[in-house]
Amino acid sequence: MRPERKSRLLSVAARRQPNLTVILENVHDPHNIGAVLRSCDSVGIREVFILYTAPDLAHNRIEIGRNASSGARKWLDIHMYHDVEACFKHVKSNYEHIWATHLGEAAVDLYDIDFTGSVALLFGNEHDGVSGESLAHATGNFIIPQMGMVQSLNISVACAVTLYEALRQRRAADMYGAGNLLSASERDALQEAYLERHTRKNYNKFVRPKQP
Amino acid sequence: MRPERKSRLLSVAARRQPNLTVILENVHDPHNIGAVLRSCDSVGIREVFILYTAPDLAHNRIEIGRNASSGARKWLDIHMYHDVEACFKHVKSNYEHIWATHLGEAAVDLYDIDFTGSVALLFGNEHDGVSGESLAHATGNFIIPQMGMVQSLNISVACAVTLYEALRQRRAADMYGAGNLLSASERDALQEAYLERHTRKNYNKFVRPKQP
Repeated sequence: MRPERKSRLLSVAARRQPNLTVILENVHDPHNIGAVLRSCDSVGIREVFILYTAPDLAHNRIEIGRNASSGARKWLDIHMYHDVEACFKHVKSNYEHIWATHLGEAAVDLYDIDFTGSVALLFGNEHDGVSGESLAHATGNFIIPQMGMVQSLNISVACAVTLYEALRQRRAADMYGAGNLLSASERDALQEAYLERHTRKNYNKFVRPKQP
Repeated sequence: MRPERKSRLLSVAARRQPNLTVILENVHDPHNIGAVLRSCDSVGIREVFILYTAPDLAHNRIEIGRNASSGARKWLDIHMYHDVEACFKHVKSNYEHIWATHLGEAAVDLYDIDFTGSVALLFGNEHDGVSGESLAHATGNFIIPQMGMVQSLNISVACAVTLYEALRQRRAADMYGAGNLLSASERDALQEAYLERHTRKNYNKFVRPKQP
């Protein structure tokens, strides 16, 4: 490994945000998944949850993102679940608030959310949105303000806009620098894991569900 | 037309931002163009510039976005050019600053740009970025901060993240409300145009280049 690449790997690991994550529920399109993973990597997310409950999607494994992920899958821990309860039990063990992109009655504006706290972001299916079963686990709903005629955004666009607002707030709070929240042991473990993955071509190419 | 739709059309037109635009240079993928148009509509952009200089792209007409635009093309004025000089002459007649997504030496951070001013945003080809010929017209380059291993974002993601930072700043300055910069005559003309387009199914489906 070239020294510059090693130093990049180590600093990317050390900047990871232990209290920010994304949950994708029944998102079909592998290009969308891939684009979401790229955005997650870009804003320093460490792990992503992929939840498939729809019968036709409850495969035994999924292929992650192909080209659209541009290799981002390698630098993320990906947890796939079929069971809603098991998924949210895992999420809640690491994250305090779960914000869903569901146009509910009590939806808050994206830009009113405090993204410096412990936050999981829940994005639903391209057509049906977030399921009621998953919504029951959410702290609340948020909406991305839209000033135009078209009233929907592509899921990878919605996710990127949301994650970059989190990055903006977290940079202002120096959470990629001196204020980073990884413990020394978490940081060491991530750096070790990333150094190991560096050599593995197919890491996370296929992901299998965790059993509840 | 239902009264609610008419009222939406009129208020969308009245919120349009006369001093914010996007220029796409040699962007190939119709899905990318479509997704960019959706984001443009969403943040209240009124007109978009599409510049094709590459020989294989200098068609006589292009088909705009298909499904990916979800009808956003109808609510945007789209100017297609083959000639760089003619394109930027038009841009400069309406916009003061041109910011390019080119990783130049003097690149400023996205979040340091004042988006409440008169701004055109220049996005380049998926592979080659912005051409030197177009860069010569830019006020400067900007970069979207990235904290991960992957060092590129999909163009529709990059465009959405940039445009939504503009929306954030412009909402804070009430530019979608009392501080909107459309003149009364511009607003009237846009509202009239949108009412007329409402009935036209194929509006902007195909766009032809303007002659220099």
